[in-house]
Amino acid sequence: MESATQDVQIRDQLATELLSIVGADAVVTDNEALRPFECDGLTAYRELPLMVVLPASIAEVRKVLKTCSRLGIPVVTRGAGTGLSGGALPNPDGVLLSLTRMKRILSVDADAKTARVEPGVTNLAISEAVKHLGLYYAPDPSSQIACSIGGNVAENSGGVHCLKYGLTVHNILELKVVTVDGELLTVGSEALDSPGFDLLALMTGSEGMLGVVVEVLVKLLSIPPVAQVVMAAFDSVERAGEAVAAVIGGGILPAGLEMMDSYAISAVEDFVKAGYPVDAAAILLCELDGHAAEVEEQIARVETIFNSQGATGTWVAKDRATRDRFWSGRKAAFPAVGRISPDYYCIDGTIPRRQLGKVLVEISKLSNEFGLRVANVFHAGDGNLHPLILYDANNAGELELTEELGNRILELCVEVGGTVTGEHGVGVEKLRPMCLQFEDAVLEQFHQVKAALDPNSLLNPGKAVPTLARCAEFGAMHVHRGQLPHSDLERF
Amino acid sequence: MESATQDVQIRDQLATELLSIVGADAVVTDNEALRPFECDGLTAYRELPLMVVLPASIAEVRKVLKTCSRLGIPVVTRGAGTGLSGGALPNPDGVLLSLTRMKRILSVDADAKTARVEPGVTNLAISEAVKHLGLYYAPDPSSQIACSIGGNVAENSGGVHCLKYGLTVHNILELKVVTVDGELLTVGSEALDSPGFDLLALMTGSEGMLGVVVEVLVKLLSIPPVAQVVMAAFDSVERAGEAVAAVIGGGILPAGLEMMDSYAISAVEDFVKAGYPVDAAAILLCELDGHAAEVEEQIARVETIFNSQGATGTWVAKDRATRDRFWSGRKAAFPAVGRISPDYYCIDGTIPRRQLGKVLVEISKLSNEFGLRVANVFHAGDGNLHPLILYDANNAGELELTEELGNRILELCVEVGGTVTGEHGVGVEKLRPMCLQFEDAVLEQFHQVKAALDPNSLLNPGKAVPTLARCAEFGAMHVHRGQLPHSDLERF
Repeated sequence: MESATQDVQIRDQLATELLSIVGADAVVTDNEALRPFECDGLTAYRELPLMVVLPASIAEVRKVLKTCSRLGIPVVTRGAGTGLSGGALPNPDGVLLSLTRMKRILSVDADAKTARVEPGVTNLAISEAVKHLGLYYAPDPSSQIACSIGGNVAENSGGVHCLKYGLTVHNILELKVVTVDGELLTVGSEALDSPGFDLLALMTGSEGMLGVVVEVLVKLLSIPPVAQVVMAAFDSVERAGEAVAAVIGGGILPAGLEMMDSYAISAVEDFVKAGYPVDAAAILLCELDGHAAEVEEQIARVETIFNSQGATGTWVAKDRATRDRFWSGRKAAFPAVGRISPDYYCIDGTIPRRQLGKVLVEISKLSNEFGLRVANVFHAGDGNLHPLILYDANNAGELELTEELGNRILELCVEVGGTVTGEHGVGVEKLRPMCLQFEDAVLEQFHQVKAALDPNSLLNPGKAVPTLARCAEFGAMHVHRGQLPHSDLERF
Repeated sequence: MESATQDVQIRDQLATELLSIVGADAVVTDNEALRPFECDGLTAYRELPLMVVLPASIAEVRKVLKTCSRLGIPVVTRGAGTGLSGGALPNPDGVLLSLTRMKRILSVDADAKTARVEPGVTNLAISEAVKHLGLYYAPDPSSQIACSIGGNVAENSGGVHCLKYGLTVHNILELKVVTVDGELLTVGSEALDSPGFDLLALMTGSEGMLGVVVEVLVKLLSIPPVAQVVMAAFDSVERAGEAVAAVIGGGILPAGLEMMDSYAISAVEDFVKAGYPVDAAAILLCELDGHAAEVEEQIARVETIFNSQGATGTWVAKDRATRDRFWSGRKAAFPAVGRISPDYYCIDGTIPRRQLGKVLVEISKLSNEFGLRVANVFHAGDGNLHPLILYDANNAGELELTEELGNRILELCVEVGGTVTGEHGVGVEKLRPMCLQFEDAVLEQFHQVKAALDPNSLLNPGKAVPTLARCAEFGAMHVHRGQLPHSDLERF
């Protein structure tokens, strides 16, 4: 009883203090009003926070963190809430710190090709704001119309074009970060390199566990003069996978290189009529961009490689309209698959490119073994797989079976030298697979880094890095390459 | 006395234990034999280590570190010893861990475009080993014939081509690192991205203070089909600086963009006859590489930009021989300057590109004020300055004056938004300027990260990150932009 009374007292004190910092309209405590914040894009996990606070400036964020630190209140930072791994899942005893009100583009420097923005600015808004200068911001996650740059930094987001242009960490120069104690740090720099330890990279992808990103200096790129897409059909996923390795091995660096298998192709064609060959076992979409003559030559080389790898057909989109149509199918692939199955579960893992063909065959075997259909739609050039497991949550046990299949696929990724998440982050979803990925010594280093920057573990506690005890409890053990007893991978 | 006896005992025990790990020929204790290890490329600082140990395998490195940790002995790791900031300066009470015997190229994967190498392999040896595959390793510090890849990782080395191809951190995928306790960690991955905190980036550039790099998986690039260089002469350094900003602002990304001022030009011409215009106040060398048609078009665009920025002459090297001749002067610039002055001190700082013209004028003013000649030879495209202060150590007080001028130049870099080191690292040389660069809050985070990974501070102690007490002692204060009272920078 006493503890409950104390809880109410602390909650009231917290609300009063936060209110005095940000004003009454920027603190949410009412249960109904808290509802929209109960989950991010991983809707299977839901939790109401103690309260939501929406600061509008760096000074307010600093005061909020000082207050929470003093009172020992956990803080979960939220951008646009489009994350797919539960990184912004509220803590029931904590504050949800929403940065959506900090959405100004502070400055654009066309000569230096940089933009300084607040964390709540959407990814696409940056490119829109500099389009008239012939510039754009390269990383383009599928959610780019909604997701925020602060969230992109927290997750180190990629997208279709990261094969050529890199992840978020390769496209930012400087961050302003508020520590758990409310200190304001500037990490990275406008210049070539910054001395000292690379805190910019350390913060990027740290899922809100090391600090709160309150300002981002992004690099801008010149919009390439020409972009063309070549599509190729294959009669086996294995052959398509090998064609991907052959393109990259051939010294070509496409702007994007995407793959879809037959489930995905037919779902997409029924939905958006992108003009895909519906009888193909797999298609590849390969975009080249740059100087006209170079693109022309490389498109021809890619076509030749596809043909020599056994493509059953190739099509080149030289004009904008055809290119947009080709991409429309890829972009609609997830909702399209959503139409052919009551439910689907999207897996996010990466593998070294040369393993693509073999891993796809192995996934197909697992699919048969589990009796669950798997559609594949993914960033093939990066080796970033997105198997979509189709299931029906109304069939007893099918969700559990789906999760088990998902784990088996991720084990397979680790075993061939890949990772358990490519671009969706760990959040709460991938805690268990993290035990497969890392040996104890590395997990310990993660915890030491966390403790160094957030000693009382108030920033997004319990996310992204499992404790060693939790890994033991899961019964999940670090997988060494070639270690799995149950898979037939000797030949890898 | 008792303490001295204990010291001898510990030293003997250490020698015995290390000998049993690596064998008699791989432990150096004799003073004369220790002499070659007393400094790195920063020869002004010299110190003999307790002993040198030269392990030949990861297993031996692990055992050496376990032994040193147990006995509380500091460890300074040394690659090729070409560093310019004293990062490999021995600790008189510690072991110098030389990795020169670990110099195997373990594997090359032409399809994945990667090579797995031991830390002692030289930078150039990697490119030589994969040349027949049409591949190369991009970062190219001037010392590439001698410097080791392990040292490159420790310093996050750049080079002439890092403008387009990035620093070391952008060109490596995975590291094997031995912790101070002798644990072996694998950080990063062969795949797109690695979950958890970015320990790969944290280790890179950490100057041997967080772990010992024992294996590196590097990215390889395809050798560009065509490379051409355009040289331009200007009648003022300011105009040349503005031309650099105009090229980058014009949406062109050169493979390299270098600048030399008149002191450097005449020194070079007297030395190597590179064909530079000796009456120019400054020249720019701009290399474009890629597809033939694109290079052709961009060379023409760069020439147009140079002319519109007031170039007094431009020359294009379309063939290999002329290009090599143009670069021969740039590459010989440091020794050439060494011929016209008894001594010179090379400063390494960075600034945002748009400040180039104005900062060069300011350096020229400081040069007059101090009565010391300054030659400028540097990576202009990156904003990475290398002012060479010419002095004569035999003139009483001139070295001190030189150091003071160097500090003023670095203050200037920080004030305009740059950094106190671009590519030479902090080591022991830049401890004081680090106090100018960073506010206390950031330095504290550095120390917390250090303490997290190396709690007893045994790895390269006292380097790279000054203590707050040391900054106070130096009387050096963090410089905010536009804060310096003594410089005339209101217009910046």
